[in-house]
Amino acid sequence: MAVNIYDTANQLEQELRNTEEFTTLETAFGAVKEDEEASRVFNEFRQVQQTIQQKQMMGQEISEEEAAQAQEVSTKISQNEIITKLLEAEKQVGQMIDDINQVVLKPVRELYQ
Amino acid sequence: MAVNIYDTANQLEQELRNTEEFTTLETAFGAVKEDEEASRVFNEFRQVQQTIQQKQMMGQEISEEEAAQAQEVSTKISQNEIITKLLEAEKQVGQMIDDINQVVLKPVRELYQ
Ligand SMILES: [Ca+2]
Ligand SMILES: [Ca+2]
Repeated sequence: MAVNIYDTANQLEQELRNTEEFTTLETAFGAVKEDEEASRVFNEFRQVQQTIQQKQMMGQEISEEEAAQAQEVSTKISQNEIITKLLEAEKQVGQMIDDINQVVLKPVRELYQ
Repeated sequence: MAVNIYDTANQLEQELRNTEEFTTLETAFGAVKEDEEASRVFNEFRQVQQTIQQKQMMGQEISEEEAAQAQEVSTKISQNEIITKLLEAEKQVGQMIDDINQVVLKPVRELYQ
């Protein structure tokens, strides 16, 4: 990778780190980590999500038990404000990263259009 | 997205457009487009690749006919220097984009480690 573009990528990394979106995510993530209940439910959520995604990728069926478990953990999450704040912050950062990718990868996208 | 980070993303886009990796890709892509045989084989390759990827994502089996078709088009490609140059250029640009992502997304990666 050329020197210029590497420097600019590092600059972008520093700026991303200082965005309101990212600092909000850090705070929200810290809040979940420090709360025992939120931390437990969040980890459970991630696990259920991973299992279902892996099965979908492999073309395997989701069992009734897994669907019920996913429903249960979704309900728990929607009732836990510490976690919903984290999910909202993740969404905002994800949107920002998508926006950055849209801009940076424009030359490649144009080439294949 | 904050103004600063948007400006820097645009700067990165301009720099990416001017890298040797990207200009080589443009040239290689143009060469394939201008050569009837290379263009036909390359499109065939993309189509076979897409079909197989979609089936794998859906957890469906690849038929013997499809596997044979993939083998055949791979052989054609390895014998066509115009196409192998494009594939090599795609690999280099892909590597550069991965490197950029490694740098830019470091704050997010660190958070979830
Ligand atoms: Ca508590
Ligand atoms: Ca020709």
